[in-house]
Amino acid sequence: MTVRAGVLGATGAVGQRLIQLLDPHPAFEIAALTASESSAGEAYRDVAKWRINTPIPDDIAEMTVRATEPRSVPDDVDLIFSSLPSSVGEAVEPAFCEAGYVVSSNSSNARRDDDVPLTIPEVNADHLDLIEVQRERRGWDGALVKNPNCSTITMVPPLAALEAAFGLEQVTVATLQAVSGAGYSGVTSMEIIDNAIPNIGGEEAKMETESRKLLGEFDGAEVNWHEARVDASCNRIPTLDGHLENVWVDTVEGATVEAAAEAMREYPSLDLHSSPDQLIHVFEEPDRPQPRLDRDRENGMAIAVGGIQETEGGLQFNCLAHNTLRGAAGASVLNGELLAESGYLG
Amino acid sequence: MTVRAGVLGATGAVGQRLIQLLDPHPAFEIAALTASESSAGEAYRDVAKWRINTPIPDDIAEMTVRATEPRSVPDDVDLIFSSLPSSVGEAVEPAFCEAGYVVSSNSSNARRDDDVPLTIPEVNADHLDLIEVQRERRGWDGALVKNPNCSTITMVPPLAALEAAFGLEQVTVATLQAVSGAGYSGVTSMEIIDNAIPNIGGEEAKMETESRKLLGEFDGAEVNWHEARVDASCNRIPTLDGHLENVWVDTVEGATVEAAAEAMREYPSLDLHSSPDQLIHVFEEPDRPQPRLDRDRENGMAIAVGGIQETEGGLQFNCLAHNTLRGAAGASVLNGELLAESGYLG
Amino acid sequence: MTVRAGVLGATGAVGQRLIQLLDPHPAFEIAALTASESSAGEAYRDVAKWRINTPIPDDIAEMTVRATEPRSVPDDVDLIFSSLPSSVGEAVEPAFCEAGYVVSSNSSNARRDDDVPLTIPEVNADHLDLIEVQRERRGWDGALVKNPNCSTITMVPPLAALEAAFGLEQVTVATLQAVSGAGYSGVTSMEIIDNAIPNIGGEEAKMETESRKLLGEFDGAEVNWHEARVDASCNRIPTLDGHLENVWVDTVEGATVEAAAEAMREYPSLDLHSSPDQLIHVFEEPDRPQPRLDRDRENGMAIAVGGIQETEGGLQFNCLAHNTLRGAAGASVLNGELLAESGYLG
Amino acid sequence: MTVRAGVLGATGAVGQRLIQLLDPHPAFEIAALTASESSAGEAYRDVAKWRINTPIPDDIAEMTVRATEPRSVPDDVDLIFSSLPSSVGEAVEPAFCEAGYVVSSNSSNARRDDDVPLTIPEVNADHLDLIEVQRERRGWDGALVKNPNCSTITMVPPLAALEAAFGLEQVTVATLQAVSGAGYSGVTSMEIIDNAIPNIGGEEAKMETESRKLLGEFDGAEVNWHEARVDASCNRIPTLDGHLENVWVDTVEGATVEAAAEAMREYPSLDLHSSPDQLIHVFEEPDRPQPRLDRDRENGMAIAVGGIQETEGGLQFNCLAHNTLRGAAGASVLNGELLAESGYLG
Repeated sequence: MTVRAGVLGATGAVGQRLIQLLDPHPAFEIAALTASESSAGEAYRDVAKWRINTPIPDDIAEMTVRATEPRSVPDDVDLIFSSLPSSVGEAVEPAFCEAGYVVSSNSSNARRDDDVPLTIPEVNADHLDLIEVQRERRGWDGALVKNPNCSTITMVPPLAALEAAFGLEQVTVATLQAVSGAGYSGVTSMEIIDNAIPNIGGEEAKMETESRKLLGEFDGAEVNWHEARVDASCNRIPTLDGHLENVWVDTVEGATVEAAAEAMREYPSLDLHSSPDQLIHVFEEPDRPQPRLDRDRENGMAIAVGGIQETEGGLQFNCLAHNTLRGAAGASVLNGELLAESGYLG
Repeated sequence: MTVRAGVLGATGAVGQRLIQLLDPHPAFEIAALTASESSAGEAYRDVAKWRINTPIPDDIAEMTVRATEPRSVPDDVDLIFSSLPSSVGEAVEPAFCEAGYVVSSNSSNARRDDDVPLTIPEVNADHLDLIEVQRERRGWDGALVKNPNCSTITMVPPLAALEAAFGLEQVTVATLQAVSGAGYSGVTSMEIIDNAIPNIGGEEAKMETESRKLLGEFDGAEVNWHEARVDASCNRIPTLDGHLENVWVDTVEGATVEAAAEAMREYPSLDLHSSPDQLIHVFEEPDRPQPRLDRDRENGMAIAVGGIQETEGGLQFNCLAHNTLRGAAGASVLNGELLAESGYLG
Repeated sequence: MTVRAGVLGATGAVGQRLIQLLDPHPAFEIAALTASESSAGEAYRDVAKWRINTPIPDDIAEMTVRATEPRSVPDDVDLIFSSLPSSVGEAVEPAFCEAGYVVSSNSSNARRDDDVPLTIPEVNADHLDLIEVQRERRGWDGALVKNPNCSTITMVPPLAALEAAFGLEQVTVATLQAVSGAGYSGVTSMEIIDNAIPNIGGEEAKMETESRKLLGEFDGAEVNWHEARVDASCNRIPTLDGHLENVWVDTVEGATVEAAAEAMREYPSLDLHSSPDQLIHVFEEPDRPQPRLDRDRENGMAIAVGGIQETEGGLQFNCLAHNTLRGAAGASVLNGELLAESGYLG
Repeated sequence: MTVRAGVLGATGAVGQRLIQLLDPHPAFEIAALTASESSAGEAYRDVAKWRINTPIPDDIAEMTVRATEPRSVPDDVDLIFSSLPSSVGEAVEPAFCEAGYVVSSNSSNARRDDDVPLTIPEVNADHLDLIEVQRERRGWDGALVKNPNCSTITMVPPLAALEAAFGLEQVTVATLQAVSGAGYSGVTSMEIIDNAIPNIGGEEAKMETESRKLLGEFDGAEVNWHEARVDASCNRIPTLDGHLENVWVDTVEGATVEAAAEAMREYPSLDLHSSPDQLIHVFEEPDRPQPRLDRDRENGMAIAVGGIQETEGGLQFNCLAHNTLRGAAGASVLNGELLAESGYLG
């Protein structure tokens, strides 16, 4: 049974990655593409400034782009992938859910809402059942599921492994983020060549809150956020793809490099189509992971970790993920796969 | 009275910056240039691959390069600036000191030695008197003075301001360092374009130890290192000049953004020729300082700070300095100016 | 006598460079700044996203920005510098000229008009008298003078030297242009990092026509364009400032490397404030000029040439100029200085 | 029948690409890896600084590296791929040929020798029979076949298509070359970030001579070089992979854009394993090809062309190829496949 999928915001940087991941996909088929009003009615090829180094799939190229509203999307679409500016997402996603669509969204709106599951399937798949609470409270036939911010996704799997092994008290993280995280036109070349920007508006707060919700426990009624103190500092650097992060953790119990590496290596992946065979790749070399060398592991869906060291309070390590694959489009597709497997579609 | 100066390692990246700063200089005059054996006897123009965007001074261009050994340098040279690979510095600098030369060195060897002053003039000029201990212990007529590593210099002035205002318990720092910090050929283009490297061999340890020595107290006999815990993670990114750093501090007393900014702005500079009018420039804009925009402030000798925020344990801020000026050649020249003013020359 | 100057489009990348060059300037004083309607009435500091690595001059920072229309600019302004998008320039510049202002413009509109002088002062200052024709034909009290496109300015001085020495039959040029040439937001980082773009819309045509007008002869009534065939191919590369160009010329008379270098070195500069001491710097090293090393020569107003070689048909060489200084803001200021000296103001 | 292959210079940038292409390969199997004396006897994993973003094949990682000399290589190796510095290639390759090995070499030595085939299989496969002349003249059982320089390979297929359609009189080419073309450490980051270098030592001469040999006619005894005048200017820019070239041709017969595009699109590829399905991809968009977007077409073995325009003398166009795949390692593998198919092995 093929799931018919729609993509909201299909011309953007993440929208293009969604198309790359969904065409072809063993379980999903793209049935509708939407974009802003000005692109509606046009062929996708003519309105998308395609920037990926694999060509646009032929059938997608000729598809007619639709407006981003429920009545423009066919009724037999089963699953909506959304990658919209948060202000648009905030206005449009609830309308889709109300109209009965299940939405797997990468947009940053509503991620902290009490009744919206924020999910990394390998980490907290059980949070998905928050959908029951959501449907009851909002009276929706559809549902809204979010994946976290790209910089949060990068560090949470290793943090989850360490939480399970040693308990977490405090997390301090500095990020070195790629320009693609800001969208196609988000960072101009004059801003970033021979430069770095020590602030990404709102990103620090996202990392601090989303990570605590992801690591929290769902008790059937609500998610009790993890109580660790999380301090983040986010930097933009001149790389194209791949967010690299320096992380320090203070652990409840004493941790060793060996035990930490083992906890990460053995942290389980899932059998979903887009899940990597091994979720966390741990490097012995101190100068890895590096964005250009390691962002493409397992089709860009693995988390790479290196430089694990003991500190007075716990551990220090570096982690990396492909921000538009594992951190955005791939995260939404993975949530879609989890939704399909969990019986929330149709 | 003009001080006659020699430059050891004059063809390297920092050596070129030393020449740029010393020619012209109101108090110093370049009297000798040294390089590796293979360059000795050649005109400087022919052996230095000059990479600075101001031309080689004409008189320097024609100077004959000497071997890096005391007997190759004229006796009437009063002050030696040294920027050598640490293995060479370790072998050669003591020989110069023994031969009676006062050496202001940027090389990383001997920085942690008990009887070697490690000095940022605006921060711990009083440590210079460790020279007395050194001379007594080693029987030297000359003296060896070090400036710290470029990444350490960047954060220590703001840390010193915070130490004075609130006391420091813990420092966590992530660096985004420019390629020039590794020397002219230290980082290949294939390593760093569209990439970042989360490890700089030995740099983390330098930051952790040198900062504690710099912030320590000299009691006339020895320097008692500051007891704060310092954790550093060093990254190389694709910028040419300017090290940017994210710093978290846990303070002894409660700190506010305003009080921290004031403490930094009012932290005194010195009257030395190369000292900036204002040592620490504090930005209100959250996205500053940035390497390309802010590294050249006050001839590259100012420290720029921005993004000061309160955290649960104290403060977070970002800082920046020009790594080959304030962080290397300018640091050595400044130490030379301090040596001259303090009467240690001649 | 200080000339009171206005700057149209003062918040853009070239507008910022104009301010950098005009404050301070020995003969000019900034009396008015204009920008788009939405910025009018605001302090310059608040609407300009200042990106130059020298701070905004204090007096300029507090100036109130005006709308870009003649009635918003004080009557006692003597000279207008214009750096507007060409569509805006086309609409607005004639209105300023009609209202009596003399306009030195960097905008690309009207450059090919028969009665508009297109001038590089060191090359064709005599074309300025086309103003007489212009005033008579258009009934203006003011006047409109243009400087050429940045990529054209880079190659025309060496071409003028070769034309004088050997005569030119054919010019073929490939450019490697910096991102600042497209304005602050003209090239996104995702477009250009680890990439190059082999086309700059309209630029090739500008180089082909403007260079022939510049090298043409003014007979008192009109400019007779030079008849050489000019073929240009324009590329954008990941550099910040400085356009580098590979040029091949077929000459009428036989040319040697030595004679060509001499013709360029001896090509006269002018005594205008912003003219370089030596207009064309000729390098012997085959790997020069390079953008980062050579764009700042003589305050960014020199043309650098290197790699001169003989070919079967004539010569090959490389040239470089700072595109936002010599190629834009500096070019307009220089034309303003020529206008002032030639008695066309007031 | 699997061909047993050896790789000379296996740790270098092209050597790593050779391994990537040969493991796995349907007809070849890596049987020996050589490197410099200091690496001989070590495991490949320990001496190769692997920089490709796919992991080292496991079996290769554990292989023992051999010295680069015939006696270190097993006798049952059928085919040698060589990617050595030209000075080493010059000394070593003839020794391998003398010892009976057939060598497909990417090294630049001997490319212009009268009796050494210089081959791009899709363009001049018939030149391979120069091996008969070579064997007779040199008394070798083995043979030496060369592929051209990476910048030459990029432009020759489209030139061959235009030669067949219209005849070529003159070629002028400016290149924008990626840093990987200089090897892993060939270009330092300080040389190239925010910069471009208008000269690549010896590259211009290689393009001018190799292209004329490739386009020449082999009459059974010798290759009569094509008589077109070829002028090249080579630039290094800050891209990782992919050489982009601006080409102007004067043609014997009149050429149109349409006829040129058709001639290129229909220029035949071969059935060799590494040949692309379509050799020359022609873009309609004027701003393509671009290195990052187009270098990976058909596993990096296609030539991309765009921006075809008519000029007074003929045509102008841009072309692009992946310099370490189509332009180096892939070129050698392709020549190896041609050698196998032509019966020159074993």
